[in-house]
Amino acid sequence: MILPDAVQRLIAALERLPGIGPKTASRLAFYLLRADDSVSAELAEALSGLKQKIAACSVCFNITDAGRELCQVCANPERDESVICVLEDALDVLALERVGVYRGKYHVLGGVLNPIEGIGPEDLKIRPLIERVARGGVREVILATNPSLEGDATALYLQQQLRGLGVQVTRLARGLPVGGDLEYADPHTLLRALQGRQQVE
Amino acid sequence: MILPDAVQRLIAALERLPGIGPKTASRLAFYLLRADDSVSAELAEALSGLKQKIAACSVCFNITDAGRELCQVCANPERDESVICVLEDALDVLALERVGVYRGKYHVLGGVLNPIEGIGPEDLKIRPLIERVARGGVREVILATNPSLEGDATALYLQQQLRGLGVQVTRLARGLPVGGDLEYADPHTLLRALQGRQQVE
Repeated sequence: MILPDAVQRLIAALERLPGIGPKTASRLAFYLLRADDSVSAELAEALSGLKQKIAACSVCFNITDAGRELCQVCANPERDESVICVLEDALDVLALERVGVYRGKYHVLGGVLNPIEGIGPEDLKIRPLIERVARGGVREVILATNPSLEGDATALYLQQQLRGLGVQVTRLARGLPVGGDLEYADPHTLLRALQGRQQVE
Repeated sequence: MILPDAVQRLIAALERLPGIGPKTASRLAFYLLRADDSVSAELAEALSGLKQKIAACSVCFNITDAGRELCQVCANPERDESVICVLEDALDVLALERVGVYRGKYHVLGGVLNPIEGIGPEDLKIRPLIERVARGGVREVILATNPSLEGDATALYLQQQLRGLGVQVTRLARGLPVGGDLEYADPHTLLRALQGRQQVE
Protein backbone atom coordinates (compact mmCIF):
# COMPACT_ATOMS: atom_id res chain seq x y z
CA MET A 1 0.00 0.00 0.00
CA ILE A 2 1.23 3.45 -0.84
CA LEU A 3 -0.92 5.28 1.71
CA PRO A 4 0.35 7.13 4.77
CA ASP A 5 0.11 5.14 8.01
CA ALA A 6 -2.52 7.43 9.51
CA VAL A 7 -4.83 6.95 6.52
CA GLN A 8 -4.28 3.21 6.44
CA ARG A 9 -5.18 2.97 10.12
CA LEU A 10 -8.31 5.05 9.56
CA ILE A 11 -9.39 2.86 6.63
CA ALA A 12 -8.79 -0.29 8.70
CA ALA A 13 -10.83 1.14 11.60
CA LEU A 14 -13.71 2.11 9.30
CA GLU A 15 -13.69 -1.31 7.65
CA ARG A 16 -14.54 -2.90 10.99
CA LEU A 17 -17.97 -1.27 10.84
CA PRO A 18 -20.82 -3.37 9.41
CA GLY A 19 -21.68 -2.75 5.77
CA ILE A 20 -18.48 -0.78 5.15
CA GLY A 21 -16.12 -2.53 2.74
CA PRO A 22 -12.63 -1.51 1.61
CA LYS A 23 -13.88 0.87 -1.10
CA THR A 24 -16.40 2.68 1.10
CA ALA A 25 -13.80 2.86 3.88
CA SER A 26 -11.25 4.57 1.62
CA ARG A 27 -13.91 6.92 0.24
CA LEU A 28 -14.90 7.90 3.79
CA ALA A 29 -11.27 8.30 4.86
CA PHE A 30 -10.48 10.59 1.94
CA TYR A 31 -13.65 12.54 2.58
CA LEU A 32 -12.52 13.06 6.17
CA LEU A 33 -9.13 14.27 4.93
CA ARG A 34 -10.76 16.89 2.72
CA ALA A 35 -13.65 17.87 4.98
CA ASP A 36 -13.68 20.47 7.72
CA ASP A 37 -11.70 19.45 10.81
CA SER A 38 -14.91 19.51 12.86
CA VAL A 39 -16.27 16.44 11.05
CA SER A 40 -13.53 14.09 12.26
CA ALA A 41 -13.16 15.91 15.60
CA GLU A 42 -16.86 15.53 16.44
CA LEU A 43 -16.82 11.88 15.47
CA ALA A 44 -13.65 11.18 17.48
CA GLU A 45 -15.15 12.98 20.48
CA ALA A 46 -18.45 11.06 20.20
CA LEU A 47 -16.59 7.76 19.96
CA SER A 48 -14.13 8.14 22.79
CA GLY A 49 -15.30 6.48 25.95
CA LEU A 50 -18.63 5.77 24.28
CA LYS A 51 -19.69 2.90 26.50
CA GLN A 52 -18.83 4.77 29.71
CA LYS A 53 -21.38 7.42 28.75
CA ILE A 54 -24.15 4.84 28.40
CA ALA A 55 -26.05 2.73 30.92
CA ALA A 56 -29.00 0.35 30.82
CA CYS A 57 -32.34 1.44 32.27
CA SER A 58 -32.90 -0.50 35.50
CA VAL A 59 -36.53 -1.24 34.59
CA CYS A 60 -36.67 -1.94 30.85
CA PHE A 61 -32.94 -2.29 29.90
CA ASN A 62 -33.23 0.30 27.13
CA ILE A 63 -30.09 2.45 26.84
CA THR A 64 -29.88 5.67 28.83
CA ASP A 65 -27.27 8.22 29.94
CA ALA A 66 -24.72 6.90 32.41
CA GLY A 67 -25.70 7.86 35.96
CA ARG A 68 -29.43 7.77 35.25
CA GLU A 69 -31.58 5.10 36.82
CA LEU A 70 -34.32 5.17 34.17
CA CYS A 71 -34.46 5.65 30.41
CA GLN A 72 -36.48 8.52 28.98
CA VAL A 73 -39.50 6.30 28.33
CA CYS A 74 -39.60 4.80 31.83
CA ALA A 75 -39.02 8.24 33.39
CA ASN A 76 -41.96 9.71 31.48
CA PRO A 77 -45.11 9.65 33.70
CA GLU A 78 -47.33 10.11 30.65
CA ARG A 79 -46.40 6.72 29.19
CA ASP A 80 -48.93 3.97 29.86
CA GLU A 81 -47.49 1.52 32.42
CA SER A 82 -50.12 -1.11 31.69
CA VAL A 83 -48.73 -2.01 28.24
CA ILE A 84 -45.22 -3.44 27.75
CA CYS A 85 -43.73 -3.93 24.32
CA VAL A 86 -40.96 -6.58 24.37
CA LEU A 87 -38.11 -5.94 21.91
CA GLU A 88 -34.84 -7.58 20.96
CA ASP A 89 -32.63 -4.54 21.31
CA ALA A 90 -32.56 -0.81 21.90
CA LEU A 91 -32.46 -0.05 18.17
CA ASP A 92 -35.98 -1.49 17.95
CA VAL A 93 -37.14 1.05 20.55
CA LEU A 94 -35.96 3.75 18.18
CA ALA A 95 -37.88 2.17 15.27
CA LEU A 96 -41.11 2.02 17.28
CA GLU A 97 -40.70 5.52 18.70
CA ARG A 98 -40.34 6.81 15.13
CA VAL A 99 -43.89 5.60 14.42
CA GLY A 100 -44.97 8.04 17.13
CA VAL A 101 -48.14 6.18 18.07
CA TYR A 102 -47.13 3.76 20.80
CA ARG A 103 -47.67 5.26 24.26
CA GLY A 104 -46.84 2.24 26.44
CA LYS A 105 -43.53 1.13 27.95
CA TYR A 106 -40.81 -1.15 26.61
CA HIS A 107 -38.74 -4.13 27.70
CA VAL A 108 -35.46 -4.78 25.90
CA LEU A 109 -34.40 -8.43 25.97
CA GLY A 110 -30.88 -7.84 24.71
CA GLY A 111 -31.10 -10.54 22.03
CA VAL A 112 -33.06 -13.68 21.18
CA LEU A 113 -32.88 -17.31 22.19
CA ASN A 114 -30.37 -19.07 19.99
CA PRO A 115 -29.38 -22.60 21.05
CA ILE A 116 -26.74 -22.85 18.30
CA GLU A 117 -24.90 -19.82 19.62
CA GLY A 118 -25.56 -20.97 23.18
CA ILE A 119 -27.90 -18.12 24.09
CA GLY A 120 -30.48 -19.37 26.60
CA PRO A 121 -33.23 -17.66 28.64
CA GLU A 122 -30.77 -16.73 31.40
CA ASP A 123 -28.68 -14.71 28.91
CA LEU A 124 -31.62 -12.43 28.13
CA LYS A 125 -33.62 -10.07 30.35
CA ILE A 126 -36.50 -12.56 30.56
CA ARG A 127 -36.64 -13.05 34.33
CA PRO A 128 -36.87 -9.26 34.96
CA LEU A 129 -39.77 -9.15 32.47
CA ILE A 130 -41.68 -11.93 34.24
CA GLU A 131 -41.05 -10.23 37.60
CA ARG A 132 -42.18 -6.90 36.18
CA VAL A 133 -45.43 -8.42 34.94
CA ALA A 134 -45.93 -10.44 38.11
CA ARG A 135 -45.76 -7.25 40.22
CA GLY A 136 -49.11 -6.36 38.62
CA GLY A 137 -50.56 -3.31 36.88
CA VAL A 138 -49.77 -4.74 33.43
CA ARG A 139 -52.71 -5.33 31.12
CA GLU A 140 -50.98 -6.32 27.86
CA VAL A 141 -47.58 -7.60 26.76
CA ILE A 142 -46.82 -7.08 23.06
CA LEU A 143 -44.20 -9.55 21.85
CA ALA A 144 -42.35 -7.56 19.20
CA THR A 145 -39.28 -9.72 18.60
CA ASN A 146 -38.30 -9.91 14.93
CA PRO A 147 -40.44 -12.05 12.60
CA SER A 148 -37.54 -14.51 12.23
CA LEU A 149 -37.04 -18.09 13.35
CA GLU A 150 -35.24 -17.04 16.55
CA GLY A 151 -37.61 -14.12 17.14
CA ASP A 152 -40.62 -16.42 16.84
CA ALA A 153 -39.06 -19.05 19.12
CA THR A 154 -38.30 -16.39 21.72
CA ALA A 155 -41.86 -15.04 21.49
CA LEU A 156 -43.24 -18.57 21.94
CA TYR A 157 -41.05 -19.11 25.01
CA LEU A 158 -42.15 -15.77 26.50
CA GLN A 159 -45.78 -16.59 25.80
CA GLN A 160 -45.41 -19.80 27.82
CA GLN A 161 -43.64 -18.01 30.65
CA LEU A 162 -46.32 -15.30 30.82
CA ARG A 163 -49.16 -17.82 30.93
CA GLY A 164 -51.07 -17.70 34.21
CA LEU A 165 -50.02 -14.15 35.02
CA GLY A 166 -53.43 -12.87 33.90
CA VAL A 167 -52.03 -10.67 31.18
CA GLN A 168 -53.05 -10.37 27.53
CA VAL A 169 -50.18 -11.45 25.25
CA THR A 170 -50.11 -10.19 21.64
CA ARG A 171 -47.69 -10.39 18.72
CA LEU A 172 -47.16 -7.82 15.95
CA ALA A 173 -49.17 -8.51 12.76
CA ARG A 174 -47.55 -10.22 9.75
CA GLY A 175 -48.48 -9.43 6.21
CA LEU A 176 -47.49 -7.45 3.18
CA PRO A 177 -45.29 -4.45 3.92
CA VAL A 178 -46.87 -1.13 2.97
CA GLY A 179 -45.68 -0.08 -0.49
CA GLY A 180 -44.63 -3.67 -1.14
CA ASP A 181 -45.40 -5.64 -4.24
CA LEU A 182 -47.51 -8.81 -4.09
CA GLU A 183 -45.54 -10.22 -6.99
CA TYR A 184 -42.28 -10.01 -5.06
CA ALA A 185 -43.65 -11.16 -1.69
CA ASP A 186 -42.19 -14.45 -0.46
CA PRO A 187 -44.65 -17.36 0.06
CA HIS A 188 -44.36 -17.23 3.88
CA THR A 189 -45.30 -13.55 4.01
CA LEU A 190 -48.13 -14.10 1.54
CA LEU A 191 -49.42 -17.04 3.61
CA ARG A 192 -49.44 -14.86 6.73
CA ALA A 193 -51.14 -12.05 4.81
CA LEU A 194 -53.83 -14.49 3.69
CA GLN A 195 -54.29 -16.00 7.13
CA GLY A 196 -54.50 -12.57 8.72
CA ARG A 197 -56.85 -11.07 6.16
CA GLN A 198 -59.36 -8.65 7.56
CA GLN A 199 -62.92 -7.78 6.68
CA VAL A 200 -63.37 -4.45 4.94
CA GLU A 201 -66.47 -2.42 5.67
CA MET B 1 -35.72 11.83 20.62
CA ILE B 2 -35.56 9.31 23.40
CA LEU B 3 -31.88 8.45 22.95
CA PRO B 4 -29.09 9.22 25.41
CA ASP B 5 -27.10 12.36 24.54
CA ALA B 6 -23.92 10.40 23.80
CA VAL B 7 -25.70 8.22 21.25
CA GLN B 8 -27.47 11.18 19.65
CA ARG B 9 -24.15 12.98 19.26
CA LEU B 10 -22.58 9.88 17.73
CA ILE B 11 -25.45 9.49 15.27
CA ALA B 12 -25.22 13.18 14.32
CA ALA B 13 -21.45 12.87 13.78
CA LEU B 14 -21.86 9.75 11.62
CA GLU B 15 -24.60 11.41 9.56
CA ARG B 16 -22.12 14.06 8.44
CA LEU B 17 -20.25 11.41 6.44
CA PRO B 18 -21.17 11.05 2.76
CA GLY B 19 -23.61 8.27 1.92
CA ILE B 20 -24.60 7.76 5.55
CA GLY B 21 -28.21 8.71 6.25
CA PRO B 22 -30.10 8.72 9.55
CA LYS B 23 -30.92 4.99 9.45
CA THR B 24 -27.38 3.84 8.64
CA ALA B 25 -26.02 6.24 11.24
CA SER B 26 -28.20 4.77 13.99
CA ARG B 27 -27.40 1.23 12.88
CA LEU B 28 -23.66 2.00 13.05
CA ALA B 29 -24.03 3.75 16.43
CA PHE B 30 -25.85 0.78 17.95
CA TYR B 31 -23.32 -1.57 16.45
CA LEU B 32 -20.55 0.43 18.14
CA LEU B 33 -22.44 0.22 21.44
CA ARG B 34 -22.61 -3.56 21.23
CA ALA B 35 -19.21 -4.22 19.66
CA ASP B 36 -15.89 -4.68 21.38
CA ASP B 37 -14.49 -1.45 22.88
CA SER B 38 -11.52 -1.68 20.53
CA VAL B 39 -13.70 -0.94 17.49
CA SER B 40 -14.70 2.56 18.63
CA ALA B 41 -11.36 3.17 20.38
CA GLU B 42 -9.35 2.44 17.20
CA LEU B 43 -11.63 4.63 15.13
CA ALA B 44 -11.47 7.50 17.64
CA GLU B 45 -7.68 7.19 17.77
CA ALA B 46 -7.40 7.13 13.96
CA LEU B 47 -9.62 10.20 13.67
CA SER B 48 -8.09 12.44 16.28
CA GLY B 49 -5.67 14.94 14.82
CA LEU B 50 -6.05 13.21 11.46
CA LYS B 51 -4.94 16.12 9.33
CA GLN B 52 -1.87 16.82 11.47
CA LYS B 53 -0.61 13.33 10.63
CA ILE B 54 -0.87 13.95 6.90
CA ALA B 55 1.09 16.16 4.52
CA ALA B 56 1.20 16.72 0.76
CA CYS B 57 4.14 15.40 -1.25
CA SER B 58 6.24 18.38 -2.32
CA VAL B 59 6.61 17.02 -5.86
CA CYS B 60 3.29 15.43 -6.84
CA PHE B 61 0.90 16.63 -4.05
CA ASN B 62 -0.22 13.09 -3.27
CA ILE B 63 -0.82 12.55 0.47
CA THR B 64 2.04 11.35 2.63
CA ASP B 65 2.97 11.08 6.32
CA ALA B 66 3.50 14.41 8.05
CA GLY B 67 7.22 15.26 8.21
CA ARG B 68 8.04 13.47 4.97
CA GLU B 69 9.07 15.49 1.95
CA LEU B 70 8.01 12.92 -0.63
CA CYS B 71 5.15 10.45 -1.00
CA GLN B 72 5.91 6.74 -1.33
CA VAL B 73 5.65 6.86 -5.12
CA CYS B 74 7.97 9.85 -5.54
CA ALA B 75 10.42 8.38 -3.01
CA ASN B 76 10.59 5.10 -4.93
CA PRO B 77 13.62 5.14 -7.28
CA GLU B 78 12.15 2.27 -9.30
CA ARG B 79 9.24 4.35 -10.55
CA ASP B 80 9.66 5.76 -14.05
CA GLU B 81 10.20 9.53 -13.80
CA SER B 82 9.57 10.05 -17.50
CA VAL B 83 5.81 9.38 -17.28
CA ILE B 84 3.46 11.52 -15.18
CA CYS B 85 -0.16 10.58 -14.65
CA VAL B 86 -2.25 13.65 -13.77
CA LEU B 87 -5.15 12.95 -11.38
CA GLU B 88 -7.89 14.93 -9.66
CA ASP B 89 -7.23 13.73 -6.13
CA ALA B 90 -5.25 11.31 -3.99
CA LEU B 91 -8.07 8.76 -3.99
CA ASP B 92 -7.46 8.33 -7.72
CA VAL B 93 -3.82 7.41 -7.00
CA LEU B 94 -5.15 4.56 -4.88
CA ALA B 95 -7.44 3.40 -7.70
CA LEU B 96 -4.58 3.36 -10.20
CA GLU B 97 -2.16 1.69 -7.79
CA ARG B 98 -4.73 -1.06 -7.27
CA VAL B 99 -4.41 -1.94 -10.97
CA GLY B 100 -0.77 -2.68 -10.21
CA VAL B 101 0.50 -2.04 -13.74
CA TYR B 102 1.38 1.65 -13.84
CA ARG B 103 5.06 2.22 -13.02
CA GLY B 104 5.32 5.98 -13.65
CA LYS B 105 4.81 8.91 -11.29
CA TYR B 106 1.72 10.92 -10.43
CA HIS B 107 0.61 14.52 -10.15
CA VAL B 108 -2.42 15.31 -8.02
CA LEU B 109 -4.26 18.46 -9.10
CA GLY B 110 -6.45 18.72 -6.01
CA GLY B 111 -9.65 19.17 -7.99
CA VAL B 112 -10.87 20.24 -11.41
CA LEU B 113 -11.57 23.55 -13.09
CA ASN B 114 -15.09 24.64 -12.22
CA PRO B 115 -16.02 28.21 -13.16
CA ILE B 116 -19.44 27.93 -11.48
CA GLU B 117 -17.82 27.13 -8.12
CA GLY B 118 -15.12 29.67 -8.83
CA ILE B 119 -12.28 27.14 -9.13
CA GLY B 120 -9.72 28.45 -11.62
CA PRO B 121 -6.26 27.21 -12.73
CA GLU B 122 -4.54 29.00 -9.81
CA ASP B 123 -6.61 26.97 -7.31
CA LEU B 124 -5.19 23.70 -8.65
CA LYS B 125 -1.62 22.40 -8.76
CA ILE B 126 -1.33 23.20 -12.46
CA ARG B 127 1.63 25.59 -12.34
CA PRO B 128 3.79 23.03 -10.41
CA LEU B 129 2.90 20.45 -13.09
CA ILE B 130 3.99 22.75 -15.94
CA GLU B 131 7.21 23.58 -14.07
CA ARG B 132 7.82 19.90 -13.41
CA VAL B 133 7.45 19.07 -17.10
CA ALA B 134 9.45 22.13 -18.18
CA ARG B 135 12.43 20.97 -16.04
CA GLY B 136 12.76 18.13 -18.56
CA GLY B 137 13.12 14.38 -18.36
CA VAL B 138 9.40 13.82 -18.92
CA ARG B 139 8.38 11.85 -21.99
CA GLU B 140 4.63 11.46 -21.52
CA VAL B 141 1.88 13.14 -19.50
CA ILE B 142 -1.26 11.02 -19.08
CA LEU B 143 -4.29 13.22 -18.39
CA ALA B 144 -6.40 11.02 -16.13
CA THR B 145 -8.96 13.48 -14.81
CA ASN B 146 -12.46 12.00 -14.58
CA PRO B 147 -14.42 11.45 -17.82
CA SER B 148 -16.85 14.21 -16.77
CA LEU B 149 -17.58 17.67 -18.14
CA GLU B 150 -15.21 19.34 -15.66
CA GLY B 151 -12.62 16.60 -15.98
CA ASP B 152 -12.60 16.94 -19.78
CA ALA B 153 -12.41 20.74 -19.59
CA THR B 154 -9.47 20.49 -17.19
CA ALA B 155 -7.72 17.99 -19.46
CA LEU B 156 -8.24 20.30 -22.44
CA TYR B 157 -6.78 23.24 -20.50
CA LEU B 158 -3.77 21.16 -19.43
CA GLN B 159 -3.27 19.97 -22.99
CA GLN B 160 -3.04 23.60 -24.12
CA GLN B 161 -0.66 24.52 -21.32
CA LEU B 162 1.61 21.56 -22.07
CA ARG B 163 1.81 22.39 -25.78
CA GLY B 164 5.31 23.35 -26.87
CA LEU B 165 7.00 21.57 -23.99
CA GLY B 166 7.93 18.68 -26.28
CA VAL B 167 6.04 16.09 -24.29
CA GLN B 168 3.54 13.47 -25.46
CA VAL B 169 0.10 14.15 -23.95
CA THR B 170 -2.40 11.26 -23.69
CA ARG B 171 -5.85 10.77 -22.17
CA LEU B 172 -7.30 7.53 -20.71
CA ALA B 173 -9.42 5.52 -23.16
CA ARG B 174 -13.23 5.78 -23.15
CA GLY B 175 -15.47 2.88 -23.94
CA LEU B 176 -17.57 0.15 -22.45
CA PRO B 177 -16.59 -0.78 -18.90
CA VAL B 178 -15.39 -4.38 -18.56
CA GLY B 179 -18.30 -6.57 -17.46
CA GLY B 180 -20.73 -3.89 -18.60
CA ASP B 181 -23.79 -4.45 -20.74
CA LEU B 182 -24.11 -2.87 -24.18
CA GLU B 183 -27.84 -2.65 -23.70
CA TYR B 184 -27.46 -0.45 -20.59
CA ALA B 185 -24.61 1.72 -21.88
CA ASP B 186 -25.51 5.40 -22.29
CA PRO B 187 -25.27 6.87 -25.83
CA HIS B 188 -22.19 8.98 -24.99
CA THR B 189 -20.23 5.98 -23.82
CA LEU B 190 -21.38 3.92 -26.78
CA LEU B 191 -20.35 6.73 -29.16
CA ARG B 192 -16.89 6.81 -27.59
CA ALA B 193 -16.67 3.03 -27.76
CA LEU B 194 -17.53 3.16 -31.47
CA GLN B 195 -15.11 6.00 -32.20
CA GLY B 196 -12.32 4.26 -30.30
CA ARG B 197 -12.91 0.81 -31.82
CA GLN B 198 -9.75 -1.16 -32.41
CA GLN B 199 -8.71 -3.66 -35.04
CA VAL B 200 -8.61 -7.25 -33.85
CA GLU B 201 -5.94 -9.52 -35.25
